[in-house]
Amino acid sequence: MKIIIIGGVAAGAKTAAKTKRMLPDAEVHIYTKDNYVSYSACGMPYYIAGDFKDWEQLIVRSVREFEKSGIQIHTRMLVTKILPDEKNIMVKNLDTEDVRFIQYDKLVIATGAEAFKPDFANINSEKIHYLRTLDDGISLKKGMLEAKHITIVGGGYIAVELIEGFVKNKKQVTLIERSPFVLSMLDEDISALVQNYILENSDGLVKIINNDTVNKIADTEQYLDILTDKGYQFQTDMIVIASGVKPAVNLAVDAGILLGKTGAIKVNSRMETSIKDIYACGDCVEKIHMVSNTPVWVPLGSTANKEGRVCAINVSGGVEDFEGIMGSAVLRYRDLNISRTGLTEKEALKLGYDTVAVIITKRDKAGYMPEVKNITLKLVADKRSHRILGAQAIGCGDADKRINTVSVGLLRGITVEELIDVDLTYSPPFSTSIDILISAAQILKSKIS
Amino acid sequence: MKIIIIGGVAAGAKTAAKTKRMLPDAEVHIYTKDNYVSYSACGMPYYIAGDFKDWEQLIVRSVREFEKSGIQIHTRMLVTKILPDEKNIMVKNLDTEDVRFIQYDKLVIATGAEAFKPDFANINSEKIHYLRTLDDGISLKKGMLEAKHITIVGGGYIAVELIEGFVKNKKQVTLIERSPFVLSMLDEDISALVQNYILENSDGLVKIINNDTVNKIADTEQYLDILTDKGYQFQTDMIVIASGVKPAVNLAVDAGILLGKTGAIKVNSRMETSIKDIYACGDCVEKIHMVSNTPVWVPLGSTANKEGRVCAINVSGGVEDFEGIMGSAVLRYRDLNISRTGLTEKEALKLGYDTVAVIITKRDKAGYMPEVKNITLKLVADKRSHRILGAQAIGCGDADKRINTVSVGLLRGITVEELIDVDLTYSPPFSTSIDILISAAQILKSKIS
Repeated sequence: MKIIIIGGVAAGAKTAAKTKRMLPDAEVHIYTKDNYVSYSACGMPYYIAGDFKDWEQLIVRSVREFEKSGIQIHTRMLVTKILPDEKNIMVKNLDTEDVRFIQYDKLVIATGAEAFKPDFANINSEKIHYLRTLDDGISLKKGMLEAKHITIVGGGYIAVELIEGFVKNKKQVTLIERSPFVLSMLDEDISALVQNYILENSDGLVKIINNDTVNKIADTEQYLDILTDKGYQFQTDMIVIASGVKPAVNLAVDAGILLGKTGAIKVNSRMETSIKDIYACGDCVEKIHMVSNTPVWVPLGSTANKEGRVCAINVSGGVEDFEGIMGSAVLRYRDLNISRTGLTEKEALKLGYDTVAVIITKRDKAGYMPEVKNITLKLVADKRSHRILGAQAIGCGDADKRINTVSVGLLRGITVEELIDVDLTYSPPFSTSIDILISAAQILKSKIS
Repeated sequence: MKIIIIGGVAAGAKTAAKTKRMLPDAEVHIYTKDNYVSYSACGMPYYIAGDFKDWEQLIVRSVREFEKSGIQIHTRMLVTKILPDEKNIMVKNLDTEDVRFIQYDKLVIATGAEAFKPDFANINSEKIHYLRTLDDGISLKKGMLEAKHITIVGGGYIAVELIEGFVKNKKQVTLIERSPFVLSMLDEDISALVQNYILENSDGLVKIINNDTVNKIADTEQYLDILTDKGYQFQTDMIVIASGVKPAVNLAVDAGILLGKTGAIKVNSRMETSIKDIYACGDCVEKIHMVSNTPVWVPLGSTANKEGRVCAINVSGGVEDFEGIMGSAVLRYRDLNISRTGLTEKEALKLGYDTVAVIITKRDKAGYMPEVKNITLKLVADKRSHRILGAQAIGCGDADKRINTVSVGLLRGITVEELIDVDLTYSPPFSTSIDILISAAQILKSKIS
């Protein structure tokens, strides 16, 4: 039995490791066009910030460890074609340009996501950076250390995490975001608070331009000259393009594998694609949103790891299902924790729910404790069924704790009334005697009835 | 309409405040034998420790605030009898010794819990302390400041919280606990770890004597002379008796109100006792455990507040149910967070469940983050139904977050398999890509199948 995995960051590496444990006699290969496999891409912003020094700490499993367990790693090998009828892949060695055909019994596509490359970036300049691969991260850090002023295009999770690191390194930052606020995946009443916090806690180094985007850039020898759609013009030492990602599906499409509505590879709960013996997992596949039961594409490392595990079990002849995601996410900007799960209010409205929401601010622990901080929590429910649909929380206090608590409830369709009944832990250093989550549910209940 | 509430700490104060908001024209009275109402008893260990200076910060709602909203507070007034047929209570003024009868339309018993007073403590000594009322707390702090060596009898939540404060104030502490380890409400594989942590993080000031109790104490003028059952003898400057509490039910029993199996007042989900127009809530009442569906008596401030709210709604003519508790609790000892929910393994075995458990230690966040810490998590399930029964977690990392996540699952009888499907938030500063909770559930799943 020969199992070939294309891509080796999170889902691919996880699939390889678990498959080899389950089928010790099988041949397991990872092919990747990159220089590295099995690393924490999510950790790159913290490496760039200098929270730890050595990028090798991002490696989850080294090539040596893989090889020790009998898994063969082929880096700098670009898979250019899948031939499902022949059960072959066509592989090009990026150093020698050699092309070979390699046979598989089972194939796993874990090609991940790739950065969206806007038209204005189609110039040849070393001052333009992305942050997808570990090579990107290493090069971005080098660039940052030499820069005085950095421009970030886009205002998603990675952009906000990068600002933290740039400010820590005393760089001036200009961020350009199409939406009215950063983090457009949150409702605007929450993302407005996040943007204010960033501006007020950036040591005067951060400027955010909203409702605008880059129109043109020119590389002079000294700097990049940037012109925005609205005519704002400025100079910068480097630019990071973090304006979205898309699933890396060209190889799959070319092989005749079906995509879902979202444009990512369609798989069933066992991670099987539309073609026999070809599986896919990680950032390149579509997922089911467990609250709305609709297909979505949300590429995240935790999901990729779970899918890799499920994929390995099925590739190895077992049966395991991946049920889907809930839109849970967390990030920090300095002391501010920002977290969400389920549907935002705007997502719920778009899906046609009879939406009701509440937003409250409360202490995260007893008011007399010296380390007390505030949390702002938004809770969204469906007026008809009383079901909780989602929650968003931000705060210098423990916001994330409240969000994971809601996540488990979403799994079983918890109602507003049931959430009030949950027995949450209480002690003055950990919460108020009536936790903000219960307070929010109580208010929502009175709004519904 | 005249509503009388006996007791005014958590449940009583909450009932009064909410009842007055719902029925602005009603007369609402609180009678208490104590000097204070509406304070955070749970916060007293932190006042004693010196985490904040002024005990008045523990006051949730001052007498002035109550009176401003039209609620009448009667402190130092001991209710000595309830006469349900006449709808009267007999009240003794503790200063003047005057006795009066006062008529009520609806009565709420919120008499709380009282410290268990062991026989050896039946001597007259100012060196013996308890920690139930705010007066106790103020007096205990004064005593502590003058003491060099303090003995704690009992090893429950309050005892452990007090050690933290005593060590912070550089006091020598000897703790005597009947059980093999402190915190006997946890499974021993967890409580052993807690006890080790305390001993290793006590600046050499703490000694713990297990499997023993105090047999006799004698008050010399300079110190207390202590003799344990096992013949251990030593001198101490003061003793804190924290060897358990019992529901304060004498008044209720005397009035013919039924108790439950646990010895606490039996109420229905609307907080009604067996006698019409008499309600009870807080530490004096029995609760339903929502996992085992059995009556239990677990006195906690968060529960008391919830019951007070439900009681007020029903007293005011509304309809609201209190569904019960889940055995959720949290405390800290210095940097160690200790938390539980649902049933422990020993509780589950006692109730006849076909119990299966797993205990694992894992990082609380990505290994390369500078602030990474370990968590140890124990997950307990029922082998037959695959239902999660409970969880315990300890660690210098964020243990409590994982426990509240489980609590919500317990409400709807989440299974081991379902817990694996929960989409928990991930980002390197907040968790590992596969959270310890999911890892534990995965191991439990393979143990079951």
